[in-house]
Amino acid sequence: MMARRSMREEIVEAALEQFHTHGYNAAGVKTITDAAGVPKGSFYNHFDSKEALAVVALRRYGAGRRLEDLAHGDGEPLARLWAHFESLRDLVVAQEFTRGCLLGNFGAEIADHNELIRAEIREGFHAWAEAIAAALAEAQRAGTVRAELDPGDTARFLVNAWEGALLGARADRSAAAFDTFFALVFGPLLTP
Amino acid sequence: MMARRSMREEIVEAALEQFHTHGYNAAGVKTITDAAGVPKGSFYNHFDSKEALAVVALRRYGAGRRLEDLAHGDGEPLARLWAHFESLRDLVVAQEFTRGCLLGNFGAEIADHNELIRAEIREGFHAWAEAIAAALAEAQRAGTVRAELDPGDTARFLVNAWEGALLGARADRSAAAFDTFFALVFGPLLTP
Repeated sequence: MMARRSMREEIVEAALEQFHTHGYNAAGVKTITDAAGVPKGSFYNHFDSKEALAVVALRRYGAGRRLEDLAHGDGEPLARLWAHFESLRDLVVAQEFTRGCLLGNFGAEIADHNELIRAEIREGFHAWAEAIAAALAEAQRAGTVRAELDPGDTARFLVNAWEGALLGARADRSAAAFDTFFALVFGPLLTP
Repeated sequence: MMARRSMREEIVEAALEQFHTHGYNAAGVKTITDAAGVPKGSFYNHFDSKEALAVVALRRYGAGRRLEDLAHGDGEPLARLWAHFESLRDLVVAQEFTRGCLLGNFGAEIADHNELIRAEIREGFHAWAEAIAAALAEAQRAGTVRAELDPGDTARFLVNAWEGALLGARADRSAAAFDTFFALVFGPLLTP
């Protein structure tokens, strides 16, 4: 018999889903507790505010990306990087080009207005870029990425270009933005 | 004596400001009519819905970008492209890394949920990419951009990479994402 998830855990999982689908402002506490199947009144036993829950949801979201495999996994580093973005693309295609990335969504909607959430987004982007930078540096040692690129700056550029490709794919309901990302990044940008 | 703007015009200008600063869901009709200094009841004399106003605001926003100068203006095409992104960056720096791009913000927050708004965002991105593609094609003829790049695809990649750089700059409250955009785009990506 499976252990029942705690009420707190039900709220976090529901929040992640509701925030990702509807955004920060459109997902109210009542929407989240309804989705979690818990009484609204129980919310404040577990979280001080919707903001505090959003920070936990962002952290949970970031932890789902398997960055360790990207940074230090088996296989050729450029192939790991390709596979990483491919798996992100496949998720978006499976969602019919909706939802996008929670970091980017909250970055667009709420980062200007909430310092705690902005700090969590910043950390999420940085952790992601660090894993990419590790793969890029390894690829430079293997001679498969231009030696003159700064791995950290280039990694951050790739994170940003990916976030923008997501916006383009959602606006167009098409994978064309991803195709171009792969072609230009793994072509002229990175190739020695 | 200056002619007083019409009530409709006051609403559009206030909406553009409120949507850009607070986002779609956080800027209610009352917030917008208050900012415009008009009675809330007058709103529906001019617009069927907040959605209809958002479409008008997006179109107004897109028209403010002087795309004709970018596509067919005077001067070297790559210099026009650089100046274009520089002017966008300067606006964001002047806003202390807040607000970002209305197309990207609405793309993240509301495109999944509203087909009319999504169509307007799509058109805004496409018009922008077309102007960039014209400059890129001219630069290719002048030999200052890699001949093998498809101008349309590359233009769309630049739009997306810029949108992502905006998200990065807002998360970090820093121009670093723009610096890297300029260095990588006008370096390894475009240079023959």
